[in-house]
Amino acid sequence: MLFHVEMTVNIPHDLPSQVANELKATERERALELQRSGKWRHLWRMAGRYANVSVFDVSGPSELHEILSALPLFPFMAIKVTPLCRHPSAIREDDT
Amino acid sequence: MLFHVEMTVNIPHDLPSQVANELKATERERALELQRSGKWRHLWRMAGRYANVSVFDVSGPSELHEILSALPLFPFMAIKVTPLCRHPSAIREDDT
Amino acid sequence: MLFHVEMTVNIPHDLPSQVANELKATERERALELQRSGKWRHLWRMAGRYANVSVFDVSGPSELHEILSALPLFPFMAIKVTPLCRHPSAIREDDT
Amino acid sequence: MLFHVEMTVNIPHDLPSQVANELKATERERALELQRSGKWRHLWRMAGRYANVSVFDVSGPSELHEILSALPLFPFMAIKVTPLCRHPSAIREDDT
Amino acid sequence: MLFHVEMTVNIPHDLPSQVANELKATERERALELQRSGKWRHLWRMAGRYANVSVFDVSGPSELHEILSALPLFPFMAIKVTPLCRHPSAIREDDT
Amino acid sequence: MLFHVEMTVNIPHDLPSQVANELKATERERALELQRSGKWRHLWRMAGRYANVSVFDVSGPSELHEILSALPLFPFMAIKVTPLCRHPSAIREDDT
Amino acid sequence: MLFHVEMTVNIPHDLPSQVANELKATERERALELQRSGKWRHLWRMAGRYANVSVFDVSGPSELHEILSALPLFPFMAIKVTPLCRHPSAIREDDT
Amino acid sequence: MLFHVEMTVNIPHDLPSQVANELKATERERALELQRSGKWRHLWRMAGRYANVSVFDVSGPSELHEILSALPLFPFMAIKVTPLCRHPSAIREDDT
Amino acid sequence: MLFHVEMTVNIPHDLPSQVANELKATERERALELQRSGKWRHLWRMAGRYANVSVFDVSGPSELHEILSALPLFPFMAIKVTPLCRHPSAIREDDT
Amino acid sequence: MLFHVEMTVNIPHDLPSQVANELKATERERALELQRSGKWRHLWRMAGRYANVSVFDVSGPSELHEILSALPLFPFMAIKVTPLCRHPSAIREDDT
Repeated sequence: MLFHVEMTVNIPHDLPSQVANELKATERERALELQRSGKWRHLWRMAGRYANVSVFDVSGPSELHEILSALPLFPFMAIKVTPLCRHPSAIREDDT
Repeated sequence: MLFHVEMTVNIPHDLPSQVANELKATERERALELQRSGKWRHLWRMAGRYANVSVFDVSGPSELHEILSALPLFPFMAIKVTPLCRHPSAIREDDT
Repeated sequence: MLFHVEMTVNIPHDLPSQVANELKATERERALELQRSGKWRHLWRMAGRYANVSVFDVSGPSELHEILSALPLFPFMAIKVTPLCRHPSAIREDDT
Repeated sequence: MLFHVEMTVNIPHDLPSQVANELKATERERALELQRSGKWRHLWRMAGRYANVSVFDVSGPSELHEILSALPLFPFMAIKVTPLCRHPSAIREDDT
Repeated sequence: MLFHVEMTVNIPHDLPSQVANELKATERERALELQRSGKWRHLWRMAGRYANVSVFDVSGPSELHEILSALPLFPFMAIKVTPLCRHPSAIREDDT
Repeated sequence: MLFHVEMTVNIPHDLPSQVANELKATERERALELQRSGKWRHLWRMAGRYANVSVFDVSGPSELHEILSALPLFPFMAIKVTPLCRHPSAIREDDT
Repeated sequence: MLFHVEMTVNIPHDLPSQVANELKATERERALELQRSGKWRHLWRMAGRYANVSVFDVSGPSELHEILSALPLFPFMAIKVTPLCRHPSAIREDDT
Repeated sequence: MLFHVEMTVNIPHDLPSQVANELKATERERALELQRSGKWRHLWRMAGRYANVSVFDVSGPSELHEILSALPLFPFMAIKVTPLCRHPSAIREDDT
Repeated sequence: MLFHVEMTVNIPHDLPSQVANELKATERERALELQRSGKWRHLWRMAGRYANVSVFDVSGPSELHEILSALPLFPFMAIKVTPLCRHPSAIREDDT
Repeated sequence: MLFHVEMTVNIPHDLPSQVANELKATERERALELQRSGKWRHLWRMAGRYANVSVFDVSGPSELHEILSALPLFPFMAIKVTPLCRHPSAIREDDT
């Protein structure tokens, strides 16, 4: 089932840049992996902001939380979750 | 190019129900048409609300406005538009 | 799976009171029925407000939306949905 | 009597991780204890956030404050309290 | 136990003035009665607004809700409830 | 005349605890003194929060500011002031 | 003593224009009178809005409420009151 | 001098459409006239909303208010005004 | 022309107190000077807050910005600017 | 196509001033360059705030993001993006 997730990243300026870079690199690895597995179905950048809009396809809130809370940047993100369902006028097969 | 659009519908309770029903039917026709054309790429219902999350693929803000402002329910919707771009970690072809 | 739902009712003062009363009576019937079925697991009144806090146990966002959007007072409610999952420190069997 | 409590945890990134870990371990111990005593009746994780939704069954605001203000993570939590009462359409015995 | 309550009154301009006046007169009667009984312990006007700040002394959220929801102006009020408890530095006997 | 004051305390976690403790002890002394003098008429804790609701009886905004800005925790408090006046339906002598 | 008051006028579009005009005319008379008496010390229009910023010089919150609640447009105004006091760096005699 | 103005139009659905159309037509005439005079320097539509972003070049807040408050749709617009000045890094001649 | 300005000061607790004191002393000097010149026409303290309400009389937004951005505490202030104009019902000569 | 962008700068007070100055100097260079290229079409200072209102003319959200995220002060700015389109009543050639 689908969940709409907005993530806004806010890395404190006094976090050592090496730490930040490692977190970002691992975050990227994890994002690629989760997309390949089909769990992280869509991933877009919001123009002009260090933030993304995503759609996850998971078995439920529990799996969603496991995935999000394990992201390396989780401690530095404000996250907003919205459960989605099929729109009665939707025609696209995979918008479910 | 892609735009993320949230639409929240708020039909006044004193609008005659026949008028409301006609608006909704036409809205649905228009939504199907725009999805078939590829302009309205994604359309999801937010669970528990008379609202949707959508992604439009249009030639720019002008076409987006033409489409949205011509929707039959436009006068009764609060609309929030966010321009999207490709995320550096995205892998899906059509998330651009 | 569990969803936390806050519903705030706002019935327009110019809705005929007979219509309002019928809506409320049907709403009550539906609430009893859904609780008996186990779908509407918890239902509390927020003190001092025409609003409730609820927990639904449904198969996913789709079923949740079906239930909520079919409530007689749905057109007059502001609804906020939050997906829940088991807390790592929870001990109660049915908080899952 | 019942109180609905939302707790959002925000541990400063420059708090030494050993201190943070000890706080979290003690918090967990306290949460288990309070649940076993029946005071902390429900405890759910909000999916995707370091936050919980809880229901406390206490003798009143004073006991609620004693409990919450003594939680190890209290200095790092934003807490929102809502007093609950029985909903006229509730059927569950222990939703009171 | 004590609850801090803010009530903001918003009477629709198209409510017939006779109806409004009767509601206000009954509201006043009820307020006097509840104060005499000791349930409505404090009642202040917020300067410049059709709103009050009150402190109720009731047996719990249930009694508070019964009282507030039975006020004649309840359908036209926005109400905010905050549970209070004794402050460790308070000296006044009846601030409990 | 009366002013309703909400104070929310937010002590930075990196303030040395000895400094914080001295501030709190002096704050308490000052609160007791001001209550005894009758200036700080009511003082309640908001359940679950490091915050209080107070009513001050002072000669005007100037005296109120002198008192509040001299509180030891003033630099760490968010303060909201609301001028009160007698409610036309109030019966308590000292709610003026 | 001084109070800073922001008034935003919002006259419902379905109020008969004759009623509205009479209210505005009386409001103007009352504003002139209160300014002449010295109670309404300053009165400015916020550019681009049907709103004003004012400073009242009254004996306290009670007199302020009497004045504001008796304004003909009071039922159609959102009012925000802020108590003022002399700034330690002010030099103007009448800013007290 | 320049003022940044955001106008959001909200025409009540029960305003007769003939009235609304006349207001819109006059509004358009006035907008053209003010642009030709140079007072209304920029005028853009916000995509997806019945709202505009504008820059006015006027002699001060007074002239700005005269212009805005005389717009036919003024009673149905929420308006936000921000005074602008030349940015130290601006190069465009007419951004002053 | 007149601008209404609200300044809220927020000095970080870890700014050395000597630095803070020098900033405040220079701020005071500058405030006195600007008041004497007539540019800073009114200056009031908001009771209970480290904040002021001011009215500036300047040649336009540019001069206003020069003045405000040169204040020693500018980096530690949240500033809200509202352009004012003469109210049609104002009688005071210098409220223009 | 055009995008309206508001940037609010918030440089942490504990960032070494040399670092801050270098960032500002480079930011200025980049702003000049982008204006000369025509991408950064308008740039205004909001009076009284360390913030600007800008209009960018770019090929789409992707180019906009590239530009904004490469600004030296990007990590210290809150940015709000609004897509613009031609207003039906606009007359200025380059407001498109």
